[in-house]
Amino acid sequence: MTVSAPHHSAVQCVSIALDQRSYDIHIGPGLLSSPDSWHGLPKAACALIVSNELVAPLYLQSLQAQLGAHYARVEFVQLPDGEQHKDWASLNLIFDHLLARAADRKTVLFALGGGVIGDMTGFAAAIYMRGVPFVQVPTTLLAQVDSSVGGKTAINHPLGKNMIGAFYQPERVIADLDTLDTLPQRELAAGLAEVIKYGPIADGDFLTWIEVNLDALLARDKSALAYAVKRCCEIKAWVVGQDEREQGLRAILNFGHTFGHAIETGMGYGQWLHGEAVGCGMVMAADLSVRKGLMPAAFLPRLRELIERAGLPVRAPRLGAERYLELMRVDKKAEGGEIRFVLIEALGRAGMHGAPDALVAEVLAAHCE
Amino acid sequence: MTVSAPHHSAVQCVSIALDQRSYDIHIGPGLLSSPDSWHGLPKAACALIVSNELVAPLYLQSLQAQLGAHYARVEFVQLPDGEQHKDWASLNLIFDHLLARAADRKTVLFALGGGVIGDMTGFAAAIYMRGVPFVQVPTTLLAQVDSSVGGKTAINHPLGKNMIGAFYQPERVIADLDTLDTLPQRELAAGLAEVIKYGPIADGDFLTWIEVNLDALLARDKSALAYAVKRCCEIKAWVVGQDEREQGLRAILNFGHTFGHAIETGMGYGQWLHGEAVGCGMVMAADLSVRKGLMPAAFLPRLRELIERAGLPVRAPRLGAERYLELMRVDKKAEGGEIRFVLIEALGRAGMHGAPDALVAEVLAAHCE
Repeated sequence: MTVSAPHHSAVQCVSIALDQRSYDIHIGPGLLSSPDSWHGLPKAACALIVSNELVAPLYLQSLQAQLGAHYARVEFVQLPDGEQHKDWASLNLIFDHLLARAADRKTVLFALGGGVIGDMTGFAAAIYMRGVPFVQVPTTLLAQVDSSVGGKTAINHPLGKNMIGAFYQPERVIADLDTLDTLPQRELAAGLAEVIKYGPIADGDFLTWIEVNLDALLARDKSALAYAVKRCCEIKAWVVGQDEREQGLRAILNFGHTFGHAIETGMGYGQWLHGEAVGCGMVMAADLSVRKGLMPAAFLPRLRELIERAGLPVRAPRLGAERYLELMRVDKKAEGGEIRFVLIEALGRAGMHGAPDALVAEVLAAHCE
Repeated sequence: MTVSAPHHSAVQCVSIALDQRSYDIHIGPGLLSSPDSWHGLPKAACALIVSNELVAPLYLQSLQAQLGAHYARVEFVQLPDGEQHKDWASLNLIFDHLLARAADRKTVLFALGGGVIGDMTGFAAAIYMRGVPFVQVPTTLLAQVDSSVGGKTAINHPLGKNMIGAFYQPERVIADLDTLDTLPQRELAAGLAEVIKYGPIADGDFLTWIEVNLDALLARDKSALAYAVKRCCEIKAWVVGQDEREQGLRAILNFGHTFGHAIETGMGYGQWLHGEAVGCGMVMAADLSVRKGLMPAAFLPRLRELIERAGLPVRAPRLGAERYLELMRVDKKAEGGEIRFVLIEALGRAGMHGAPDALVAEVLAAHCE
C-alpha cells in the first residue's frame, strides 16, 4: 500500500484522550480512498456501512472498496435522510439488517454521512448486542466539527431532541475534507454555526479568525476548512477529555442549543436544520448573556452579524413564549423544572445560568418573527 | 426511624465490586418496608417506579410510601406483563411518561418486579437522557438470584432474545425475600433453574446443597431461600467483578441459555418462561458436555433429575434441528457463524466450546418431544 506524499503530508490528527476509550480524529483531503485511514481497526468477520440516499451514491463505493481489504463481508444499510427520521423506526432498520444476517458482536459499524447518520449509527453500535465497535466517517461540516466527535449518540423523541441515547465513543473519526465539496450550501452554513460556536465558548481569537476567514470558508477554501475543522476538534477534545459524560464543563458545547432544540422540536424535526436552529439559538443566548449583565451590549450585534454573514437565519419562528418555555423545560440540562442556559461570561468562556421566565420571554419577543 | 431487630439482623449484603460502579445487594425479609433499604440513594426531584399489573397491586403502595420520604415526586408507570412485551413499545411507555412530566436527568428509576421489568427499567435508565440512576427491586426468585444483579439490561428483537441492550449497573439491589411468598409456583420453579445453574458452573458443593434442600426451597422455607439467594449472588458478584462486559469468563453464566434462548424465540416470547427454557437448555448442554467427553455420563441423569424435581420441563419443543441451529447462530456468543456453547468441564467449572452441527443435532434428537 502506498499513499501519495501530498495527501499524506496534509493529514492532521487530533486525539481524544479517554483512557481505554481514547481515539484519533484524522482530518485531511482524500482520506476516504486512502488505505491508511482504515488500518488497525478492530478485526471482525463483518462490517456494516450505514448511510442515506444522498451520501451513499457519492461515497459508498469508495468506502466499500477500502473496507473489502479488511472484512470478509461488507454490508450496507440505507436510512431515510433527515432529522425527522432520527427515530426508533430508522434505528431498527439497522438491527433488522444485522440480525437477519446473523452479524455477531464483533461486527464494526461505519457511519457514512452527517450528524443524523452519525448519531443513529453510534447509538445502534452502543446497544446492538450491548455494544459493538463503530467508526465515524462524517461527510458534513457539522458532523466533522462537532457531532462525530465526543461520543454523544441519540435518537429524538416526539417530546424532545436527543432524549434517548448513550455516551459511546467511536474507534476512530475519518474527516475527509473532500466530502465537503459535494455539500449543499445550506448544509455548509449549518455547519458554520457549530464552527462559530467554539469561539465565544472557548477561544476569542478563533472567533476573530472566523470573522476574517468567513468568505474563504463559504467558498470552501481547503486550507481554511482544514484549519477550522482542526481547531474545532481540538477544542472539543479538550472539553470532552475533561468531562466525557457532561457532569459539568461539557455543557458549554450546548451554547445556543437550548433555544435551538426548542425551535427544532417546536417546528417539527427536519424543518430547520440543526445548525440553523443553533445559529439562531446563539443569537438569543447572546442576548440573554447581555441582558443578564454578563457581556457588553456590543457582543450581540457582533455575533448576530457573523451568523447572518454565514447565511444562517437570525430570526426565530413565532411559537409563542409559553410554548418555548414548555419545550425548554424538558431540555436535558434542566433540573427540577428550572431551565438552564449556556451563557457567555467573557469572550472564550461560558457557564451555566438560570434566568427568570420573564427575562427569557423578553429575549423571545426581541428575536421571534 | 427504627428497624425491628429480627428484620435487621436477618439482612445480608453482597457487594459487586466495579470501581465507581460498585453497589450492594441487600437480601432479607421485610426490606421493602424498611427505611434502611432506601437511604443514601442519589438525590433527585423525581423518582419513577416501573412495575406491572401483577406486582403493582401487591407492593406498589409500600414502595411509594418509602420513597415519598426521599423524593418530592414519586411517579409510577405500569408495563404489560410477560416476555412477549419486553420490546421497544413497552420501553417507550417509560420515556413517554418521563418526558410528559419533564423528568430531568437526575430522576431515579425503580424496577419493581421480575426479570422483564428489571431488564426494561435498567435499559430505559441506561438510555434516558443518555443515562439516569436506577435501583433494582426484584420480586421473583429468578430476578433475585440472577437478572437483577450484574447490569445486563435489554429488550428482545423478533429475531433474537436480549439483542438490543446495554451493560448498565444499578445503584443498589433490594431483594426482599417476603415478596417470594406471593410468587406463583411456576415462577418459583423457573427461578430454581437459575439457582441450579450456579452449581455446575461454579460450585459443586452448592449443587449438592441444592439437591439436599430442594424440598425446603420448593416449600419456600425462608432460611433455605435466604442461603440460596445469597450464594447465587456471591457467585455472580465474583464472576461479574472479573468480567463486567462479558469478554470471557462471564459467558459461563449463560449455561443452558444457548438452547434456552432458541426455545424462547422459536416458541414465541412468553410461551415458555425464561427459567423453564434455561432448565431444559441445561439438560441439553449437560448432554453435549457428556457427548464431547468433558463430563462422565452420570452427570446428565443427575442434573436432569434435579431439574425435573424442581418442577421444570426437561423435554424440549420439537422445532426441528435446522430451526434450532438457525436460531442459535444469532446467539450473542456466536462468532463468525459458529455457535459457541457453555459446557461443563468439571463439577464447578465451565468453559466455551464449539460443536459440530451433527453432534448438536444428536442432542436435539435425544431431548425434543
